Amino acid sequence: MLDTMIIGAGPAGMAAGIYAARAELSHLVLESGLMSGGQIINTSEVDNYPGLKGIGGFELAMKFREHCDGCGVQFKDGKVVKVEKKENGFLVLLENGESYETKTVLFATGAKHRTLGIPGEAEFTGSGVSYCATCDGAFFRGKEVAVIGGGDVAIEDAIFLARVCSKVYLVHRRDEFRAAKTLVNRLRACENVEFVLKATPSEIKGNGRVESLCVNTPDGERVLPVSGVFVAVGMLPNTELLKGLVSLDEAGYVVAGEDCRADVPGVFAAGDLRTKHLRQVVTAAADGATAIYEIEAYLNQQ
Amino acid sequence: MLDTMIIGAGPAGMAAGIYAARAELSHLVLESGLMSGGQIINTSEVDNYPGLKGIGGFELAMKFREHCDGCGVQFKDGKVVKVEKKENGFLVLLENGESYETKTVLFATGAKHRTLGIPGEAEFTGSGVSYCATCDGAFFRGKEVAVIGGGDVAIEDAIFLARVCSKVYLVHRRDEFRAAKTLVNRLRACENVEFVLKATPSEIKGNGRVESLCVNTPDGERVLPVSGVFVAVGMLPNTELLKGLVSLDEAGYVVAGEDCRADVPGVFAAGDLRTKHLRQVVTAAADGATAIYEIEAYLNQQ
Repeated sequence: MLDTMIIGAGPAGMAAGIYAARAELSHLVLESGLMSGGQIINTSEVDNYPGLKGIGGFELAMKFREHCDGCGVQFKDGKVVKVEKKENGFLVLLENGESYETKTVLFATGAKHRTLGIPGEAEFTGSGVSYCATCDGAFFRGKEVAVIGGGDVAIEDAIFLARVCSKVYLVHRRDEFRAAKTLVNRLRACENVEFVLKATPSEIKGNGRVESLCVNTPDGERVLPVSGVFVAVGMLPNTELLKGLVSLDEAGYVVAGEDCRADVPGVFAAGDLRTKHLRQVVTAAADGATAIYEIEAYLNQQ
Repeated sequence: MLDTMIIGAGPAGMAAGIYAARAELSHLVLESGLMSGGQIINTSEVDNYPGLKGIGGFELAMKFREHCDGCGVQFKDGKVVKVEKKENGFLVLLENGESYETKTVLFATGAKHRTLGIPGEAEFTGSGVSYCATCDGAFFRGKEVAVIGGGDVAIEDAIFLARVCSKVYLVHRRDEFRAAKTLVNRLRACENVEFVLKATPSEIKGNGRVESLCVNTPDGERVLPVSGVFVAVGMLPNTELLKGLVSLDEAGYVVAGEDCRADVPGVFAAGDLRTKHLRQVVTAAADGATAIYEIEAYLNQQ
């Protein structure tokens, strides 16, 4: 019977592993991918994890992993197919038929960004196509960029980028916004922002790096001469395993506050998959630390 | 008129600086000490900031500072004497007579640990005397240690250390505990824990590193042969400047949740000085990032 089973080996799961190992909790960190790191493996540069400026995403993942290995964190390759609540804990079933009993489960399975699914998007991801203005906006100082989307995040991203970039195109498929009115008004007040509405992106073109975004509008095709395309059409939390086990919000995130406690005792959620405002490497890592602290407190109450 | 004035240059303040600079917010980071870093400057080793295993506290502070300098974070030496609410923001007054107008204020002034004030305590801090079991416990694997205190944190620390260390003395000046009963019962069940009650620590002795702790008990002086002394007698948040400006809890912490918003619009608090469960470098850094995100959202609503 483990003290805790940590599902996921991105920044949240690995930070949790470090804290669990240092606390001498019996644990396993399950990783389903080919290597540890989660979303950051595919990020060319992470410039805002404090203390490690301008590090490659892959290199940052390796640094987390080395830290884990130096602390004695226990990893296991495996994909979870089911987590069952039992009388005194949980049963975690793996795809290969193995199962583990554990007193607590810490989900750190992250989230993924919704994509547009248009030509050029996958090709130029990390070379001009980004899903996070907070992470990557500063790389586009003085350049022209497009933001795609109409929700709060898209409008916030566009306001953010309007301070950094020479020009921002806000591309939205409708001429109304889900975003808060105050946000939209604020964006309208930015002189270097052009709204491109009733517009559907069709292709991202470039040569090694993004050079333009093609959009279909009621007036025909337009080619926007941008070097950055910020896609802000939502996220998909990886919370399939949690359906029916704990409460999820309408977007699928685990309902859990700063203490990372889900609404079933013994179930914890750390990182991008839980309800929170800012999803970054440093906030995921902080969640991993906090979740283990809370798991210790939970075990002390049993 | 600044977008934000960041008061304090520890991990929270510097992380906020990185996010503010990358977001092109006009800002200043005020540091009152001789150098940036806050509490970690005086920490010999920080082993649990994910990605930088076993780094010296001073070196970690330098890495944060280099990151800031690489992003164009604006620092200023100065001690704040007063922060006044004005109609459209705040006036920050410095000891040298200068003053700054700012739309928002981010307090990141940290906290300090209460000390015992006994001979040997200051001398051996970082050489066997610690104020944080979560941070330093793993350095005492297989050794004998003492924990001093009777609140939740002291008992949690002792339970934690009982898993890591060969023996734990819980030294408390009374024979009753402020800590939760379940915690005390759990500690009583640990076989390698000895309660030393109605006991007052009088001196920490050693030779380069801690070798023993002297305590006065009703039966006379006892010398506990420990190589670690964990002092858990409370913390003092550095929130003098905030009295009368925002709500503080009874221990003096700024009442603010994960979003770092104090209960006066435009005032934010990041790091050890706000109400939270786990005070670590990584959670302080996450706060700095989140606070700037929330400050952007706040400014977008004005």
